[in-house]
Amino acid sequence: MTSISDVSEALRIPTFEDVKAARERIFGFAHRTPVLTSRTADEQASASLFFKAENLQRVGAFKFRGAYNAIAALDASARQRGVIAFSSGNHAQAIAYAAKLQGAPATIVMPSDAPAIKIAATRGYGAEVVFYDRYTEDREAIGRRLAAERGASLIPPYDHPDVIAGQGTAVMELIEEVGELDLVVVPLGGGGLLAGSALSVTALLPDCTIIGVEPEAGNDGQQSLRKGEVIRIPVPKSIADGALTPSVGNCNFPILKRDVDDIVTASDAELVATMRFFAERMKIIVEPTGCLAAAAVLQGTIPCAGKRVGIVLSGGNVDLATFSALVEAR
Amino acid sequence: MTSISDVSEALRIPTFEDVKAARERIFGFAHRTPVLTSRTADEQASASLFFKAENLQRVGAFKFRGAYNAIAALDASARQRGVIAFSSGNHAQAIAYAAKLQGAPATIVMPSDAPAIKIAATRGYGAEVVFYDRYTEDREAIGRRLAAERGASLIPPYDHPDVIAGQGTAVMELIEEVGELDLVVVPLGGGGLLAGSALSVTALLPDCTIIGVEPEAGNDGQQSLRKGEVIRIPVPKSIADGALTPSVGNCNFPILKRDVDDIVTASDAELVATMRFFAERMKIIVEPTGCLAAAAVLQGTIPCAGKRVGIVLSGGNVDLATFSALVEAR
Repeated sequence: MTSISDVSEALRIPTFEDVKAARERIFGFAHRTPVLTSRTADEQASASLFFKAENLQRVGAFKFRGAYNAIAALDASARQRGVIAFSSGNHAQAIAYAAKLQGAPATIVMPSDAPAIKIAATRGYGAEVVFYDRYTEDREAIGRRLAAERGASLIPPYDHPDVIAGQGTAVMELIEEVGELDLVVVPLGGGGLLAGSALSVTALLPDCTIIGVEPEAGNDGQQSLRKGEVIRIPVPKSIADGALTPSVGNCNFPILKRDVDDIVTASDAELVATMRFFAERMKIIVEPTGCLAAAAVLQGTIPCAGKRVGIVLSGGNVDLATFSALVEAR
Repeated sequence: MTSISDVSEALRIPTFEDVKAARERIFGFAHRTPVLTSRTADEQASASLFFKAENLQRVGAFKFRGAYNAIAALDASARQRGVIAFSSGNHAQAIAYAAKLQGAPATIVMPSDAPAIKIAATRGYGAEVVFYDRYTEDREAIGRRLAAERGASLIPPYDHPDVIAGQGTAVMELIEEVGELDLVVVPLGGGGLLAGSALSVTALLPDCTIIGVEPEAGNDGQQSLRKGEVIRIPVPKSIADGALTPSVGNCNFPILKRDVDDIVTASDAELVATMRFFAERMKIIVEPTGCLAAAAVLQGTIPCAGKRVGIVLSGGNVDLATFSALVEAR
């Protein structure tokens, strides 16, 4: 039996052809999210900014694209045996929902102290939740064991070719909608979104620059790009809870190294200022991680004057109490 | 000198031809706002819901449409003499911004105790702010005097044919995008949005029902529709601060009477529950007034099972402190 989680599969490096195939698979299932513009934002950056609002995606984040695509790419019998994800974040929700839509059983490995609301939401999508102790157990090992026992496919959150290809569809849609861009800026955690976006940018707009933005507290991507090899760091501390990865994926890095022009960082204070901007001026809720790219543009880290700039807002999943506490503390 | 505020002009009842003309005038200036959908909302209402997100409109509300159209409809010399609005809310901001974009001087009559942030925003659009004492002075009389002195055009917030026609473009776009609908539901304050929407619905989808929703505390529209004449009530108390009108407009009512099927109400508690739904599940900020139509659908006041329903989210202008206080108090 071969599983999608085999090492050989995980090291297949996707191409833009995979992004186009993903586009076909997710069509009509993922939202084609709107591209938002704001005169105020344009004035602040002296540029023309186009925000791809993946916070308005299903399950509130771009993760739905990669999750749906990875499940749709399985053959029918593998899909019937089911899928497994280990995560308490957006990827797990996305796998649970995408599996439900495609009639695949889903098992989500979550820490036993995960917030009750997340456990309930995951079960609400019909997924089975398996708990682990985050201090003594290895969630990835549990996921692999379950996958082997059940003949199910383990779908990792970013280090997987079909996940990367699915994430690339957001920027593909953005370029289709707004045309020529000088610069595309994308949040960076494990690198699935950035790698997929880089495939779309390189294929569709070869002269366009692409920059990733990660939390200041965890600049492993920046270090990796500069050293030319994957650097691992201790799990960073930042309010950007979707980007607290110790390293980018093995499947992502070759794409980042080849196609990405630069990686910069944003501080928590810059993320908060950006969240507030989106809420006050653009009437949307963007989670801290989702603000990474926009923060680097709006706070001036990336010079943009006179440019046409595409910016991915990657998600909106922040609970209202946290949201209120962050935007109101000045 | 004739002014747009002359009684004869105010009593011209607009038609769908005026909405189409407005569409041409605002094209490229007003945002074509996205239509959002949500599986969760659909499940809650057992219907297919299409939310026209005018909270994502310029200045954060549909008001920009009517304001821009009314100024664009002036002849060049009238536009040069300028426009006047009396309001501390979305209409004033919309007039100030639409006037700036069209090179028309704008004067906004605001209460001397208006929030500093609103005064600053209005001045930020280049408008002159004239203060009045809300306890001793009549803002409408001040507006009319200024208009006469300056030869400027007074543009009222809803009781005006070009304002109504501009507001009708939102539902026109909605129908163009989603096609057949069984029901369109629209917030109701002074009646500009509801009357304009009714023109579009009646012309484009003659079999579609249209229902207005006003605050429970101020059901003057409901009373007026039932009695067949404009009923005035004391200024109601509700968190729906954009719908605290004592009566619908003289120019709006003939359209409401002819084309609107029903008017229902939503309570403040229902509006808060709906704001929370939009923030948590759809990642958008909708002001209390903007939730009126959605509240009546999501809370079950309007039976929708099995229907295709268009819902206008009219605006998103709520300051973050108020937003947080409302959505967090359970």
